[in-house]
Amino acid sequence: MSSQRKVFFVSDRTGITAEVLGHSLLTQFEGIAFKRTTLPFIDSVEKAQAVAQQLADFCLESETRPIVFSTMVDGAIRNALRQRNNALHLDFFEKFIDPLEQELGMMSSHTMGKSHAIDDNDEYKTRIDAVNFTMNSDDGASTKHYDEADVILVGVSRSGKTPTCLYLALHYGIKAANYPLVPEDFDSEKLPNRLQPYRQKLFGLTIHPERLQQIRRERKPDSRYAALDNCKFELAEAESLMRRERIPFLDTTHKSVEELASTIIHSAGLTRRLF
Amino acid sequence: MSSQRKVFFVSDRTGITAEVLGHSLLTQFEGIAFKRTTLPFIDSVEKAQAVAQQLADFCLESETRPIVFSTMVDGAIRNALRQRNNALHLDFFEKFIDPLEQELGMMSSHTMGKSHAIDDNDEYKTRIDAVNFTMNSDDGASTKHYDEADVILVGVSRSGKTPTCLYLALHYGIKAANYPLVPEDFDSEKLPNRLQPYRQKLFGLTIHPERLQQIRRERKPDSRYAALDNCKFELAEAESLMRRERIPFLDTTHKSVEELASTIIHSAGLTRRLF
Repeated sequence: MSSQRKVFFVSDRTGITAEVLGHSLLTQFEGIAFKRTTLPFIDSVEKAQAVAQQLADFCLESETRPIVFSTMVDGAIRNALRQRNNALHLDFFEKFIDPLEQELGMMSSHTMGKSHAIDDNDEYKTRIDAVNFTMNSDDGASTKHYDEADVILVGVSRSGKTPTCLYLALHYGIKAANYPLVPEDFDSEKLPNRLQPYRQKLFGLTIHPERLQQIRRERKPDSRYAALDNCKFELAEAESLMRRERIPFLDTTHKSVEELASTIIHSAGLTRRLF
Repeated sequence: MSSQRKVFFVSDRTGITAEVLGHSLLTQFEGIAFKRTTLPFIDSVEKAQAVAQQLADFCLESETRPIVFSTMVDGAIRNALRQRNNALHLDFFEKFIDPLEQELGMMSSHTMGKSHAIDDNDEYKTRIDAVNFTMNSDDGASTKHYDEADVILVGVSRSGKTPTCLYLALHYGIKAANYPLVPEDFDSEKLPNRLQPYRQKLFGLTIHPERLQQIRRERKPDSRYAALDNCKFELAEAESLMRRERIPFLDTTHKSVEELASTIIHSAGLTRRLF
């Protein structure tokens, strides 16, 4: 007996902030299916009035009223959004701007579009450098730039290295390389030669064998590569290598890319270069 | 006369939600330098007490009290964080969980670590497929998969295509290819042949010539590639091609990668595959 509720994320800018916090809150309510719509760039009273009308129409047609998560800097636009409709309005700015104004002893600028602006050249350069670095050293493609790496993720094929590296680069400006551990790396019973000079930068990823099998099957069905016993073998060897070499490692099976990136920064003591 | 304030982001999970909303709020206060520290995975009363002590120590040493943005699901942990210190505490969950519980007629689960969990195989597959697609078709590397693309970004070299594509793939599961417009593409005065079948999927990026010059100079100083007159020429040609071919386009100069991605989804009417 699951019910359904309509949710709107409304913002004078991209709506990303409203989505992130709104999503976190909604995951606390299980058994309800939330149907989500994002309405970005609602940056004038007129546009807000149009959304308010849309909400009013929705209230008429539906048994339950919609829930609106918003981040509107301008009070007049925020008010316009609330006129003529009975939606539940939760604005994330409204609740927190007041105590911050008091605390900081100044008025907020009420300027739209500040949150993500990057006029700053350093910030741009940091991000693009990290992204380029990460793309150029993906999947062990090139190890010659490992000197520059902030971190080198190791793990068997399909253990989650690439998306985690990209997330580290895009969000935190961290130069993240990755090196896939392949069966040949296990023969010598020591750290692959190319990784030896960079021992301090290594961080491992592992995954449950059944999950790995499932992922590899989608890529290469009916292959030795995807067979469960081979997945088990590779993972056992990789984990034993990481334990022996004292490489810290993390199980990716039940973790999102955001959590992996954040945990690695925290555990490996990395310095984020972007905020 | 700029002042400085210390800010902590504290969370029982990664702290990303607290950072995103806190950062948005702080950008509304200009002229204050905020020194930020994120303390993730504060998921027990004991850990919260240790942070509370850290905050108390900070209060003693500093003229102004710290500002704490938190997302703590558990009330007891939240309380522990507030004991024995005089910081300004703003918890994003606290303020919104109550009205949502009332609205939805149920208690929230108060479960930590729900916000970003991806046990869902479809979600994992959507993201990894999009990331792989995007990496394999970066920089016009391969146009043979354009059939599969949700969107193909076009623009001159260094106009911002790669990070935008990666953001679209990682966050929204959108298969985003990119095709760099090079001087040879302008000779024919028509859409490059390889793009012809995919006219409907094209979206353009442009940038101010001075900014482009600055970015290219860092890559190849003293090159023709980075010369201002060449940047101006390439951009004028690219923009005229996009206008002629009716490819919608966007100026990336003052936009962050988040804004670019969100605007493209909105303007091009793309369907996001991940929430």
